[in-house]
Amino acid sequence: MKSRAAVAFAPNEPLQIVELDVAPPKKGEVLIKLTHTGVCHTDAYTLSGEDPEGVFPVVLGHEGAGVVVELGEGVTSLAVGDHVIPLYTAECGECEFCKSNKSNLCVAVRETQGKGLMPDGTTRFSYNGEPIYHYMGCSTFSEYTVVPEISLAKINPQANHEQVCLLGCGVTTGLGAVHNTAKVQEGDSVAVFGLGGIGLAVVQGAKQAKAGRIFAIDTNPEKFKLAKEFGATDCINPNDYDKPIQQVLVEMTKWGVDHTFECIGNVNVMRAALESAHRGWGQSIIIGVAGAGKEIATRPFQLVTGRTWKGTAFGGVKGRTQLPGMVEDAMKGKISLAPFVTHRMPLEDINKAFDLMHEGKSIRSVIHFSE
Amino acid sequence: MKSRAAVAFAPNEPLQIVELDVAPPKKGEVLIKLTHTGVCHTDAYTLSGEDPEGVFPVVLGHEGAGVVVELGEGVTSLAVGDHVIPLYTAECGECEFCKSNKSNLCVAVRETQGKGLMPDGTTRFSYNGEPIYHYMGCSTFSEYTVVPEISLAKINPQANHEQVCLLGCGVTTGLGAVHNTAKVQEGDSVAVFGLGGIGLAVVQGAKQAKAGRIFAIDTNPEKFKLAKEFGATDCINPNDYDKPIQQVLVEMTKWGVDHTFECIGNVNVMRAALESAHRGWGQSIIIGVAGAGKEIATRPFQLVTGRTWKGTAFGGVKGRTQLPGMVEDAMKGKISLAPFVTHRMPLEDINKAFDLMHEGKSIRSVIHFSE
Repeated sequence: MKSRAAVAFAPNEPLQIVELDVAPPKKGEVLIKLTHTGVCHTDAYTLSGEDPEGVFPVVLGHEGAGVVVELGEGVTSLAVGDHVIPLYTAECGECEFCKSNKSNLCVAVRETQGKGLMPDGTTRFSYNGEPIYHYMGCSTFSEYTVVPEISLAKINPQANHEQVCLLGCGVTTGLGAVHNTAKVQEGDSVAVFGLGGIGLAVVQGAKQAKAGRIFAIDTNPEKFKLAKEFGATDCINPNDYDKPIQQVLVEMTKWGVDHTFECIGNVNVMRAALESAHRGWGQSIIIGVAGAGKEIATRPFQLVTGRTWKGTAFGGVKGRTQLPGMVEDAMKGKISLAPFVTHRMPLEDINKAFDLMHEGKSIRSVIHFSE
Repeated sequence: MKSRAAVAFAPNEPLQIVELDVAPPKKGEVLIKLTHTGVCHTDAYTLSGEDPEGVFPVVLGHEGAGVVVELGEGVTSLAVGDHVIPLYTAECGECEFCKSNKSNLCVAVRETQGKGLMPDGTTRFSYNGEPIYHYMGCSTFSEYTVVPEISLAKINPQANHEQVCLLGCGVTTGLGAVHNTAKVQEGDSVAVFGLGGIGLAVVQGAKQAKAGRIFAIDTNPEKFKLAKEFGATDCINPNDYDKPIQQVLVEMTKWGVDHTFECIGNVNVMRAALESAHRGWGQSIIIGVAGAGKEIATRPFQLVTGRTWKGTAFGGVKGRTQLPGMVEDAMKGKISLAPFVTHRMPLEDINKAFDLMHEGKSIRSVIHFSE
């Protein structure tokens, strides 16, 4: 079948809107029609060519919501018409990681997904007869896409897709980092480095957890208004100080902050976040994705004196099991999604969404496939 | 009063056995007579001149056992004749860290201790009228030493001092790292890098915790016999492989080891230990003390895919509260100390203890102050 899609034919070039050919779903796969997709920094990261796993030409996008159109052989957990969110972190339920309550990092389709392929090692997308790669097992920048059954969370059909598509990546990652990875408790202090979609979700999560002081840190002070709405108590622009931000935070708190979150992908900020953590028990959670080959560093004394360095992917959330409940929470107002959607546009304008993100003007642009 | 002591007059020179003058204990201080002291790598580290906090001339030593001789003003929790272990990590019971169940890093005397001084900013040791510095709040290489009341754990007077002095540092650090910091559970896999006193204590702790596979790693295969006696299931010499040890361990275990411990103080080994940890939930604990200015590094991807990097000091043990119970456990045979004591000698031979340690021939040499 034919599908409108925004294709990245090469790194660092604008996406092109074309009509792709989409092959039918094979065994264990599902064809879905996207209604909405967010545009996330990770899409821009791969488009930049810095992602070592990046392959081209590719259909990017990994933060979508849609409806099941066709089932491949053997698919039993979904039906045509089901509302779904594609998962870049699958949940097979059978691997060592799915069976553990300590990790959401299912390995069932990891290898092929990292190469831009379906589990059988081929692609379902093609253009003029040439294969086009998949992306993060989702490829939500195509109106029709094929994903493995284990990479789909079935959600309440009453949910607002324009909003809950954001639970496919950024908002879930931020909330999950607070609740699953850091396990923030009432009264704890929190510092958030970087106030994009993920950082603001961390602020929201910290507020849900009844954190005490919530430091929101960004070099773009235009982000502070929304951060305060979500619950930040102290907004800090590192450029306002002539000393390192970790020193600023330690001086403001005496011994540092209980939980710090890096939501940018900058290894220097990751160090600052770790060194801002409370002596004795502070922990720092890396959420941002750093450029290829970049390394984090610190003096081991920082850890020996009680700080812990962790990371998180998709907020530690097991997608098929937990995402439906988060959608319910969003519908009940326990999770606030509307403020994240700062811009909306048709697929044809998707390059504008990237521009707005790079200019720091948007939190999330959401693509509407049909209006 | 006079006291025999081994004094480090300058970095990298042999200790000199001299008769020091020891001033009486001031307010909140206690004079003790050491009966035994271990010689630990940390003493050698400071003696080497690499310790940024190192000051000279100094009485080193921090792993001792002794008896209370005289109380300073206001000391109420100890009496003359009490058997004690000096603590380089004090426990005041009143600071933010003592009041937390998440940390043992009491700050009450931290600043002066780091400068080689008693809490009032002076020293109790002098030689020919010139002050000699204290070390880690203990200075157990002097037969008589003065320490703060809050830096003494009162122990069962029936305990074997030659053995329980090792609970003043190495053995407690290793056991505590397993039980308090890593919280190893039955069946978990463990890897220990470096089989000195601390590393062997980690092996013992892992066995106590009923760990499954216990990897013991050292470039000196002479350490393997004792490691096996303590419970190691796999002894590995990295020099036997032409690939990085983290790769060896990951291949042996498929996804890495649940808990890894760095017991050397080498930042490259710290990286290897982290990268040997299990994808999804593995954690690596830094115990060794690195040289001044050295930094640890890794790709953030290691953390984002579920590994945690931590450190520990004195095994997370609150000395005054918990050490007496560990002494009881040693007396009941629940903690095995005898195998650590590979050499014993009088104070006059203390430089030989350093030589044996550097040559990898000893686990612990214990100094007997009187025979």
